[in-house]
Order: sequence, then structure tokens, then C-alpha cells
Amino acid sequence: MLYAKGAGLVNRHYHPHQVFAYTISGKWGYLEHDWVATAGDWVYEPPGESHTLVAYEHEEPMKVTFNVTGPLVWLDENGEPEGTFDVFDYIQICKEHYEKVGIGADYVERLIR
Amino acid sequence: MLYAKGAGLVNRHYHPHQVFAYTISGKWGYLEHDWVATAGDWVYEPPGESHTLVAYEHEEPMKVTFNVTGPLVWLDENGEPEGTFDVFDYIQICKEHYEKVGIGADYVERLIR
Repeated sequence: MLYAKGAGLVNRHYHPHQVFAYTISGKWGYLEHDWVATAGDWVYEPPGESHTLVAYEHEEPMKVTFNVTGPLVWLDENGEPEGTFDVFDYIQICKEHYEKVGIGADYVERLIR
Repeated sequence: MLYAKGAGLVNRHYHPHQVFAYTISGKWGYLEHDWVATAGDWVYEPPGESHTLVAYEHEEPMKVTFNVTGPLVWLDENGEPEGTFDVFDYIQICKEHYEKVGIGADYVERLIR
């Protein structure tokens, strides 16, 4: 789930696999498209489509479930790959956060089986 | 999306691929499991797990997004396959409904590209 309390941006990237999104609350879209999604809106992303995610100002936070497979590939200003981000990066970030807030990095292991 | 206005049952079946569910409203579960899902609950189904879906009585209708790939396989009383159900069956049911309510079977073509 992507949760944004205020306006924000996720840099341009693509997913090698298809993505399915369902909007729980808030307002979001991609700079590359005209549509804007709000509560109840589904979005289908074909494999390989590149986009820049925008969370817009809204009275509710942006909460969207993204069903994603595999990594995403970051793109630079010229549209060339410049790195990836996948579940192992999420786990690493999670560990750092759990350590910082005092419940310990290993807490994440309880969510994995 | 599976939408049930009242209590109901979906006969035992399995999906050859994994399934991801997000509960929008209502109360549901599988006869084969102890858990009960309500608004905000995610459910992951590993490929091949057989189950019998129950929509429970609730003040809100059961609305659940299921991200499904391919067909489901119906199982008989002995756990043996007895037919499949896939997107082409959904389209057929949709056509019959659209015809019945007067907007015409072909209306479904507008949703397909």
C-alpha cells in the first residue's frame, strides 16, 4: 500500500510486469496521463509503461493498494534505467524504520514466513 | 469485484494461480479457515489452495476486489475437478444481464479493447 499524507512525487519508473491498483482514499495520478484517480477507482498498468506518480493535495491521505510483481526500474532524465527497487529494498527500509522507532530491526522477520 | 448484498456461498474451488484480495466492506471468509475478513483486510491465496467462500450477514454489503489470473476450477464433493470458470464466463453472464435489462448484449464490447 502506498500511503501519502500530503502532496508528493515518485520519480519516473516502469514495472516489467503488470500492475493492478485500487484507490482507497485520496487523489493521485501519473504526469504522463490525463486521468486522476480517487476513492473507488481501479487502475491497470500494462507491463513496461513508464510513469511519474503524483499524490495530489486532498482532504484524505492517498491510500492505494498496488498489486505489483518483481522490481520497479528507475529511469533517468533521458529515459535510461538507473537502478531498481524491489521487495528487498522495502524490507531494508522497514528494518531501518523499526530500529529507529525502538522495536528493533528484527521485528520485520515476524512478518515474513 | 465480488459484491454480495446478503449472506451467500461460492462453492468449493481452487485457482491455479495466486490470488490477492482487498476487503472494501462487509464480512467474508472461507469455510476451510478460521479467519474472517472485514473492511481493510487483505488476503493472500497461494496457488492451488481450495476453499469455499462465505459472505456473512453484515450491515454493509460484501465488496471485495480479487486480483485473479486465469480460471478457477470447481471441485465436487470428493474434491475432484468438475469444471472451470474464467473471464469468458464472466463476459457471457454480463451479456445475458445486459440483454435482460435492455441495454443489449453488445454493450459489454465497450468495456473490452
